[in-house]
Amino acid sequence: MLLEMKEFFVQDAARFENCTVTTYFVLSSMQVREKKQGGQYLALIVSDRTESLEARMWDDVADPIAYCSEGCYVKVQGDISKYQGKYQITLKKLRLAADSEIDPTDFQPATKFDVEEMWAELRGYVSAFQNSDLRRLVFSFLDDERIGPAFKSAPAAKRLHHAWLGGLLEHVVTLVRVCLAAAPFYPEVDRDLLVTGAILHDIGKVRELEWNSSFSYTLEGQMVGHISIAQGMLREKVKEIAPFPEKLTLLVEHMILSHHGKYEFGSPKLPMTPEAILLSALDDLEAKMQALRNEFAAAEAVGKGPDEVTEWVRSMDRALLDSKKFLKGD
Amino acid sequence: MLLEMKEFFVQDAARFENCTVTTYFVLSSMQVREKKQGGQYLALIVSDRTESLEARMWDDVADPIAYCSEGCYVKVQGDISKYQGKYQITLKKLRLAADSEIDPTDFQPATKFDVEEMWAELRGYVSAFQNSDLRRLVFSFLDDERIGPAFKSAPAAKRLHHAWLGGLLEHVVTLVRVCLAAAPFYPEVDRDLLVTGAILHDIGKVRELEWNSSFSYTLEGQMVGHISIAQGMLREKVKEIAPFPEKLTLLVEHMILSHHGKYEFGSPKLPMTPEAILLSALDDLEAKMQALRNEFAAAEAVGKGPDEVTEWVRSMDRALLDSKKFLKGD
Amino acid sequence: MLLEMKEFFVQDAARFENCTVTTYFVLSSMQVREKKQGGQYLALIVSDRTESLEARMWDDVADPIAYCSEGCYVKVQGDISKYQGKYQITLKKLRLAADSEIDPTDFQPATKFDVEEMWAELRGYVSAFQNSDLRRLVFSFLDDERIGPAFKSAPAAKRLHHAWLGGLLEHVVTLVRVCLAAAPFYPEVDRDLLVTGAILHDIGKVRELEWNSSFSYTLEGQMVGHISIAQGMLREKVKEIAPFPEKLTLLVEHMILSHHGKYEFGSPKLPMTPEAILLSALDDLEAKMQALRNEFAAAEAVGKGPDEVTEWVRSMDRALLDSKKFLKGD
Amino acid sequence: MLLEMKEFFVQDAARFENCTVTTYFVLSSMQVREKKQGGQYLALIVSDRTESLEARMWDDVADPIAYCSEGCYVKVQGDISKYQGKYQITLKKLRLAADSEIDPTDFQPATKFDVEEMWAELRGYVSAFQNSDLRRLVFSFLDDERIGPAFKSAPAAKRLHHAWLGGLLEHVVTLVRVCLAAAPFYPEVDRDLLVTGAILHDIGKVRELEWNSSFSYTLEGQMVGHISIAQGMLREKVKEIAPFPEKLTLLVEHMILSHHGKYEFGSPKLPMTPEAILLSALDDLEAKMQALRNEFAAAEAVGKGPDEVTEWVRSMDRALLDSKKFLKGD
Amino acid sequence: MLLEMKEFFVQDAARFENCTVTTYFVLSSMQVREKKQGGQYLALIVSDRTESLEARMWDDVADPIAYCSEGCYVKVQGDISKYQGKYQITLKKLRLAADSEIDPTDFQPATKFDVEEMWAELRGYVSAFQNSDLRRLVFSFLDDERIGPAFKSAPAAKRLHHAWLGGLLEHVVTLVRVCLAAAPFYPEVDRDLLVTGAILHDIGKVRELEWNSSFSYTLEGQMVGHISIAQGMLREKVKEIAPFPEKLTLLVEHMILSHHGKYEFGSPKLPMTPEAILLSALDDLEAKMQALRNEFAAAEAVGKGPDEVTEWVRSMDRALLDSKKFLKGD
Amino acid sequence: MLLEMKEFFVQDAARFENCTVTTYFVLSSMQVREKKQGGQYLALIVSDRTESLEARMWDDVADPIAYCSEGCYVKVQGDISKYQGKYQITLKKLRLAADSEIDPTDFQPATKFDVEEMWAELRGYVSAFQNSDLRRLVFSFLDDERIGPAFKSAPAAKRLHHAWLGGLLEHVVTLVRVCLAAAPFYPEVDRDLLVTGAILHDIGKVRELEWNSSFSYTLEGQMVGHISIAQGMLREKVKEIAPFPEKLTLLVEHMILSHHGKYEFGSPKLPMTPEAILLSALDDLEAKMQALRNEFAAAEAVGKGPDEVTEWVRSMDRALLDSKKFLKGD
Repeated sequence: MLLEMKEFFVQDAARFENCTVTTYFVLSSMQVREKKQGGQYLALIVSDRTESLEARMWDDVADPIAYCSEGCYVKVQGDISKYQGKYQITLKKLRLAADSEIDPTDFQPATKFDVEEMWAELRGYVSAFQNSDLRRLVFSFLDDERIGPAFKSAPAAKRLHHAWLGGLLEHVVTLVRVCLAAAPFYPEVDRDLLVTGAILHDIGKVRELEWNSSFSYTLEGQMVGHISIAQGMLREKVKEIAPFPEKLTLLVEHMILSHHGKYEFGSPKLPMTPEAILLSALDDLEAKMQALRNEFAAAEAVGKGPDEVTEWVRSMDRALLDSKKFLKGD
Repeated sequence: MLLEMKEFFVQDAARFENCTVTTYFVLSSMQVREKKQGGQYLALIVSDRTESLEARMWDDVADPIAYCSEGCYVKVQGDISKYQGKYQITLKKLRLAADSEIDPTDFQPATKFDVEEMWAELRGYVSAFQNSDLRRLVFSFLDDERIGPAFKSAPAAKRLHHAWLGGLLEHVVTLVRVCLAAAPFYPEVDRDLLVTGAILHDIGKVRELEWNSSFSYTLEGQMVGHISIAQGMLREKVKEIAPFPEKLTLLVEHMILSHHGKYEFGSPKLPMTPEAILLSALDDLEAKMQALRNEFAAAEAVGKGPDEVTEWVRSMDRALLDSKKFLKGD
Repeated sequence: MLLEMKEFFVQDAARFENCTVTTYFVLSSMQVREKKQGGQYLALIVSDRTESLEARMWDDVADPIAYCSEGCYVKVQGDISKYQGKYQITLKKLRLAADSEIDPTDFQPATKFDVEEMWAELRGYVSAFQNSDLRRLVFSFLDDERIGPAFKSAPAAKRLHHAWLGGLLEHVVTLVRVCLAAAPFYPEVDRDLLVTGAILHDIGKVRELEWNSSFSYTLEGQMVGHISIAQGMLREKVKEIAPFPEKLTLLVEHMILSHHGKYEFGSPKLPMTPEAILLSALDDLEAKMQALRNEFAAAEAVGKGPDEVTEWVRSMDRALLDSKKFLKGD
Repeated sequence: MLLEMKEFFVQDAARFENCTVTTYFVLSSMQVREKKQGGQYLALIVSDRTESLEARMWDDVADPIAYCSEGCYVKVQGDISKYQGKYQITLKKLRLAADSEIDPTDFQPATKFDVEEMWAELRGYVSAFQNSDLRRLVFSFLDDERIGPAFKSAPAAKRLHHAWLGGLLEHVVTLVRVCLAAAPFYPEVDRDLLVTGAILHDIGKVRELEWNSSFSYTLEGQMVGHISIAQGMLREKVKEIAPFPEKLTLLVEHMILSHHGKYEFGSPKLPMTPEAILLSALDDLEAKMQALRNEFAAAEAVGKGPDEVTEWVRSMDRALLDSKKFLKGD
Repeated sequence: MLLEMKEFFVQDAARFENCTVTTYFVLSSMQVREKKQGGQYLALIVSDRTESLEARMWDDVADPIAYCSEGCYVKVQGDISKYQGKYQITLKKLRLAADSEIDPTDFQPATKFDVEEMWAELRGYVSAFQNSDLRRLVFSFLDDERIGPAFKSAPAAKRLHHAWLGGLLEHVVTLVRVCLAAAPFYPEVDRDLLVTGAILHDIGKVRELEWNSSFSYTLEGQMVGHISIAQGMLREKVKEIAPFPEKLTLLVEHMILSHHGKYEFGSPKLPMTPEAILLSALDDLEAKMQALRNEFAAAEAVGKGPDEVTEWVRSMDRALLDSKKFLKGD
Repeated sequence: MLLEMKEFFVQDAARFENCTVTTYFVLSSMQVREKKQGGQYLALIVSDRTESLEARMWDDVADPIAYCSEGCYVKVQGDISKYQGKYQITLKKLRLAADSEIDPTDFQPATKFDVEEMWAELRGYVSAFQNSDLRRLVFSFLDDERIGPAFKSAPAAKRLHHAWLGGLLEHVVTLVRVCLAAAPFYPEVDRDLLVTGAILHDIGKVRELEWNSSFSYTLEGQMVGHISIAQGMLREKVKEIAPFPEKLTLLVEHMILSHHGKYEFGSPKLPMTPEAILLSALDDLEAKMQALRNEFAAAEAVGKGPDEVTEWVRSMDRALLDSKKFLKGD
């Protein structure tokens, strides 16, 4: 049985046991090893958005060694089998895939929400701004062709919360919704300013992260960081759309710089305005709630019972309990 | 011109300059000093809910010295005058006031909201619970005559946020409202459980604080603290209304113990459930926003301009800026 | 050679090399693996109070897979052999053991002191109290059938100091002795109050820990913690034996809440009374001295010389030196 | 005896005891008080770059109250006298001074080095750069008329090290010298890049601070901070002088963002390159050595002996000892 | 009524109201002020071991100004009176006291225990050592005429615990007693080694502190500290009494270096041996218990009730409660 | 092909693939294992200053087991081969090497600079001292035959910066050079005193470390530490060369005690003099720059590109970038 392009995903390996499949993968790891009888073979890990798979290639490895490397997209043909309870694939053919053959969303985890719908919702919030300067400012970001498309596809992190394609947009849309729900209880808060902060606070992530075949930090991300990248982007936009009120610049800049809420998290300033304080608190809450969602799913996956806490979550220095599942019992 | 009982408040001193007033005060400070020419006089500070006032009493001080002390309610007669730009009162008469003469709300700052309305709103939320066990639990607190009335009059703190009569209730009602607004965005959260936590998390303050003529900590407050007091109250209530589900007990207990969110703030546990995490974050936000409101009012009072930050706020380790006032300018 | 019930312990494996043994174990780990030639086999770790042992079972694994799981007591028959310098057992039979066949003390490390003697000593201290209220309070715990027997068998921790059956009692008795030796030097200290604190400070561990076939934290232990559990138990006992002096309640409650001595160790209050300060210091000393004893034994076991420090002790952030052994030399 | 304009400085008060002087001051503090006999008088503190002086004005205070306020330059006529060991001035005339009458350097402490000489030295270093891009970048700052003149007059801080006019330039020139002396020992370091960092690292202070009649933080300084201000300035300059190599932009940006060396000092990144590490270390050393110079002078001023340490220096958490003076003895 | 030498102590001022006294004081503070009518007078604070007293000297101040300064012993004659409820003395005569006139113990607080008895007790412990090397080592300190007498008179601190003459000896004797009481419970502990550590751990204080007319730090104390001073003394003694076993040197040195138990308290090493751990814990306990004693006395002195906690104790970050007094009630 | 003594180094293994070599190694690790067919074999790691190598010995292992152990020098004969891409050696002969056969510098990494030249340079600096007391003091260390030779061969650390033979001298010489370059900019600094501190600050490392066949800490190093060892050495030297000025002793002692600059790094005092502050800053800089050099080399070795940061450097809590290589590009 021969498959056509990327109809096969790793998570379906069981259905193809002992079949030959032809498909595309990311080459996540590639080691050249010596055969005992002489000559070389390849020990590989190949991946798509659903999972990873061990692979071996015993013959004709000269071309793959010459042309392929970790992080590449490849086209392969091979046999699926099961060894010590785990599936693997023995490759017969392996070549670099052309860009035209690849749909990146096949290879990376992606948001389960509709990107265009979220994008429209976000633009809708901005259109509704009463403050035309802020409206103009935010649209200058969203309409920028170096920023808008990146904003729609970027993950929100390399790992931890929202680490998937579209994760940044998903994080921002959810945050805006919560901000809008909470704002009415705090009359000190300027609604348009708050939403501006919620939309722009993480905009530097479009340059802090790379999300080609995998998620990683750019050099600029490591040496400047998304907070200062965003601040630089703001300064440039403000020049582009001049004249723009200085007071608004200052307040938006302050929200960006202070949104992590603590010096040791890389914020050079602590939140000093009502909007900055509210934004920082709800952004932190969003991140924690998403982390909790991930941990509950992981606990479910390894078969934890309703009375059991999750594994220790190092970033939160505690384990977690899914209280709804606990109350419902088995 | 002679006033009747507590029609005079310190904030109105200007209108009574050079008048004689008869009224009631709390004796905030009382020192017996030697006159240069021999004999004793009293240097006092008297207060009501609006402000404090310097007082001197030159004659007939034997009885006041014998019967009055700091923290007492007193009835006085004296002359209002102005000295070096500040008002003061020279007392001619001073005696202890009877309890029957005193309305404590005249002497302590109080919430500007209607206590009964807030109370009804709070009870309304509980009546709407779908979980009848939690409804039963919360009402067992609200209907307890050692708790309900105290809950309605307690301040939320000795100083800092909501440090006024009815402040605890005001804080709790606001917190419940924000919780209800935020909960729909987090499907992991059990709404009734969250609101139960919001209502009970600070219930220990009815025993941690005293609010007779001034606000102070009880000995139990200092040695046990409102978190552990509340946990003890919960344990007792659960026994009273037995049988009560153990799982709910555990989850409510955990919300109480963890709501400060950090060990160094006296929480023996970090929040581990969705409800505990949400409650802790919004409680902290509420406190910060109220602190900010106080600081903006204080800055206004000392005549700070719209471009000026407040005084340094030690508890937040920063100064604050009233962004709305700043945007509006002079 | 066939053994009868639990005459075989893992530490004696060398004496039974190449023998067949029939005995009982705890199933510490159980993995189902694929044989190369098809079919499944079991890779297991089995344990008793002395040590753990690798086990393999190659045939008839269907029933064990269906009925046994990690943490169970099992009865086995198998052959002891040595592989790469380590002993292992190849199982021929494996079935769940009945409760009636098991003496839990065969499977868990236990105190080397006589539990009943320690218990009698502890009761003796309480009988000697001059303060009859405190005597009544402590006996209400010791005589409670949900508490007393648990107190006698509980470990003091999941790992680290006194992590064995009877460890809690052993820790408490030693602590009381040191308290009684130190108290005379501090006339500010009420002796009965101090001993009450020493006996009750860790009482919450009877619900924080589980010690069936292995030691672990209960859900209540993880979400409430032994400090707050103990405080709840105290509140309930005080109600049961009412009337009980409020002042004593407050002082005992404070000792329990503050005994860890630091916020970051989960104490919601710092020790404020002479008894609480003394108790907290000696409790910490006891734990450190026991940790040191464990580390010296471990160093001895791996053949460290008298001039060598132990392995790095992470919980104490240092290595240790057995000074007596060092002075004596080889 | 009548003086002409600003020939009188506070430090010379002793020579003018019981004389009438006419001169200019900054009004550092101004309080309107009630005279016992009715009417108002002024209690003032007036200052120039040498020191402060208590002042009283008893008559004709209506105009001063209407027109003068704290921070203004004023022209005064008054009598110098000595009261309880301290000099003071009793004012007969007081009016606002015109800008044209004022030389600001009379009123603020200033560097004792020649500003133009330091400026020329600094430009000399840049002219000598081998890297023409960096030369172009730094001159684009120095030649900018909104930046260059401010750079020459700005203090380096509100208080603590180099808190005087020209202090920023003095700090930068000294730092460049030490950088040039140390660089040869570290072949990993790019000399031009290092000097660029030394010149630009604090450039944001020209907008973080105000130094009109006194030194204070601007609102931008408080809400954005000199590190992020400098980064914004860099981004704008790079656009202005485009094309400019991206790699250099990144390295300079990183030096600016990381130069405080610790998150808690407001650096959003830690130094990652040889130049950033060297710059951060020497900048910190410079600041400490200047602080030490100030403390030695202060100790000298209050008559401390050669064997005595200075007052406790809170910012360094220690007292200091002038070792040279100590070795020399009395 | 004229008194003879130092029969008058400040604490007895009430009995001498309106009397003339002739006595000796330490000059704790001395200010020369201008009289309104011209000329100078002296505003002084004079002290003895019981308390301090305000003093004024209106005439004949030229000689005192020339010859006396803060920290000197002086002989005075003056009149005791009461002003605004506080006693003061108006001096008629004031001159420097000769050393021969002064018994320093009249001017500094001193231990209430018998120094010679404590000294004999301490020597007794050492005589009983089974380890003759340690006996020889400790006696080499006690018998050293630059150390022994200083040990008997030194305070244990400038302020806080045992800040009085003989305080070091008192602290050490108490610590040895508690060590001897606790050691039997820890068989890992070498008794002689532990007592050696208890006697020598603070020996560096004889050079860290000065206790002439007041308590202060020496320059060596500030720049080297008593821990490192003691280590240097130990190294020198070991040379003097050579040969001395290296192993004992190492263990005693380690106890000295580690006895503060934390890096941030100036210990360059953490306690690694049973003796060092026990010593460090009991030394800390001793200091806390003495601090508590001081605070209870201070609370008593200002009239706090049995239900009231002490003032906030900054060094312990908490308030304290005298539990025995609390239980007894009024 | 047979090699003679230590012409073979592990880094040259490729050239000797499939050859028999006879050479010397350090035995870094030695395990006795069971052969499947019965009998024992040895699994070893052998090393020299260039690298480590896996070794197996299948026969005649009785003598090696009896006489050799980890850390010994051994003479071996064996065959070099390649397995799974890595070289290994199969031993035919293995015996203990005699001291006379061994040149330790063949087995440990060593400075690439000429030790005698560095030593002469260092002595030259001291000869040039103007302060003859300090000259005398430093030479008393350098000329001491228990110190001088050790100073020339000691590593500066067990691992991290300058962890090779001669590393201590290399570190000290470089530090002195930088000190001399920086000192002229700080007129407060006494040049001779500073250089004395630079030479002596780490002198305790000659007793803190052992560098026989590998680098490790001595027991004294672990329990006393190089700071306090150095202080003891200073005290002894000062006695030896008495009379020596007390003031200089104090200042040198203070530099030694404070040079780590932070309590948590084991410095019992913070730097208080200009020399101590400068020394501490430049010592820290030297260590960081050397760490950076190591990391750049490691990154080069694993083939990192010019745009890539190094691995995470735990001791510095960051990754690093080689800016020169980055600017130059590929």
